[in-house]
Amino acid sequence: MDEFDFINKVKPNRTFQQNVKVAIGDDAAIYESSQGYQQVVCVDTMVEGVHFLRGLSSPFEVGYKALAVNISDLAAMAATPLYYLVSLAVPPNWHENELLGIYEGMRQLSGEYKMDLLGGDTVSTTDKLVITVTVIGEVEQGRSTLRSKAKKDDIVFVTGTIGDSAAGLAILLGKATVHTQSLKTYLIQKHKMPTPQVKVGRIAGRLNRASLNDVSDGLASELNEIAEASDVGITIDEQALPISGELLSLQSSYNIQSWVLYGGEDFELVGTTSQESWEKLKHACDDIGVQVTKIGTVQSNHKGVLLNTKNQGYIKLDKLGYNHFKK
Amino acid sequence: MDEFDFINKVKPNRTFQQNVKVAIGDDAAIYESSQGYQQVVCVDTMVEGVHFLRGLSSPFEVGYKALAVNISDLAAMAATPLYYLVSLAVPPNWHENELLGIYEGMRQLSGEYKMDLLGGDTVSTTDKLVITVTVIGEVEQGRSTLRSKAKKDDIVFVTGTIGDSAAGLAILLGKATVHTQSLKTYLIQKHKMPTPQVKVGRIAGRLNRASLNDVSDGLASELNEIAEASDVGITIDEQALPISGELLSLQSSYNIQSWVLYGGEDFELVGTTSQESWEKLKHACDDIGVQVTKIGTVQSNHKGVLLNTKNQGYIKLDKLGYNHFKK
Repeated sequence: MDEFDFINKVKPNRTFQQNVKVAIGDDAAIYESSQGYQQVVCVDTMVEGVHFLRGLSSPFEVGYKALAVNISDLAAMAATPLYYLVSLAVPPNWHENELLGIYEGMRQLSGEYKMDLLGGDTVSTTDKLVITVTVIGEVEQGRSTLRSKAKKDDIVFVTGTIGDSAAGLAILLGKATVHTQSLKTYLIQKHKMPTPQVKVGRIAGRLNRASLNDVSDGLASELNEIAEASDVGITIDEQALPISGELLSLQSSYNIQSWVLYGGEDFELVGTTSQESWEKLKHACDDIGVQVTKIGTVQSNHKGVLLNTKNQGYIKLDKLGYNHFKK
Repeated sequence: MDEFDFINKVKPNRTFQQNVKVAIGDDAAIYESSQGYQQVVCVDTMVEGVHFLRGLSSPFEVGYKALAVNISDLAAMAATPLYYLVSLAVPPNWHENELLGIYEGMRQLSGEYKMDLLGGDTVSTTDKLVITVTVIGEVEQGRSTLRSKAKKDDIVFVTGTIGDSAAGLAILLGKATVHTQSLKTYLIQKHKMPTPQVKVGRIAGRLNRASLNDVSDGLASELNEIAEASDVGITIDEQALPISGELLSLQSSYNIQSWVLYGGEDFELVGTTSQESWEKLKHACDDIGVQVTKIGTVQSNHKGVLLNTKNQGYIKLDKLGYNHFKK
């Protein structure tokens, strides 16, 4: 396989964004920024054997998710995703067709947002495939939904349902067994191909004030980050947590609560906003058919995150989310 | 080692650029762009065992070079470097102190350009360290030095001296032997810690018109890219190629010409500009003490790249530069 030849195969033959002045093909890409907007940028890496298993995810799914988790970070800043760059470190046992599959997964998702591929690097490595994606987006000046924006008496909300992804991973790894095929497919797909909540991020950015985090490391961890950055306390209600019927159907056999609170990788948005703005957010989400649920409130009389349970009263939720690096 | 703890250790405690609105610590970073400027972005990856050997380069040198090669790409677009993001995939046998060394190498180089670290990801892997750096810079609208800007009768120039890096690599790998310590140090340093030619890139961007490439894959390869993108032919003069006294001192024992033409990784700038602009470029480079040498001219009566040699007449130079992916 030839690097230059491979680049030609993955290079898009058109760009979506008029602001792109030079796409792939020179030393770097060039684009113009929109007036009145700020640039938003982040990077995320997925490693074979750590973040995905080659036998359990198709190249398409790997590519899709590598981009999705990055778009989710932009969504959590209320940004519109615009551009992405990809770096692949490829071991000898990965073949060109698989790499093209990875790019195809990214191409399909990026197309939904009219994102342009602005660059990449493809290098060889010896052992495991490493895929690093950088995304760039934009948000109206001063409109970003920082973690530090939570205030006393705010409503705490979360989009979609949570815990599905962790259940899907458990099924994928053989740690949980589900006999209904449609149920199995639903949960595994939630893990493999999460949908970034870009539209909700954009809606939240138009509110007077909102904080947002995406649920990558688990609900407990994300809420702790908001509480810490905003110097407030958060209490959520066990009974209010949005859990899918699919996940609920497993509760007789598995401890689904740990998936819901600590599982992570749902890539839903969790955040806070004022009572008044919450009503606006709820209506706007209803209009676009996205579930959003009030799960708690922000307090000033404690720090950290409390879970109000039916049977055990208030329980402190620690930052026990997924931490890749803990040994 | 804890990921959150590590992030806190590498997180800068100040930012250089006023345009940074949110640095490390939220889902993504936010910055504002300067009016009248375009954004320039690229990504490059270095893999342990492929791009560097752990026993032969210090973590500091690895970090320095990973950022330098990216800054060099921005220089080749006439851009001012502003921001960088880092992703590390870390195998268990790399220790925190070494990772901090990598960051320290980047911190030192980035400080020279007042670049801010805007994000990163640190994940575990099983075998080899993979470091991916994304850089973002800016260039005045329409001022970028694209490969496609070469025209008939342009002067072809290159900064600094070339071939040193390839000689340094050969010494490092034991493929060449040098007994003088200062000579050895000079050549190895040229390989390990290249200086991106940002100032020359900025000067070239102010000329009426210029094309630029950085010498990463070898002079022959870079010139071929310019010739191809501009649909012209390039002829360079063997006698004019700027070769350091250090490298020349090896010519009785080694074929230094292949290092000069095909070695790559010098991260000098090679480009073309009009006769009139060449004089301006030369003077401006003299003023800042950077060597720049006229090595040839652009023609319309042939394609590709020719080398005018003393003994063998004109020789066609093919795109034989380093291609990581060729098997």
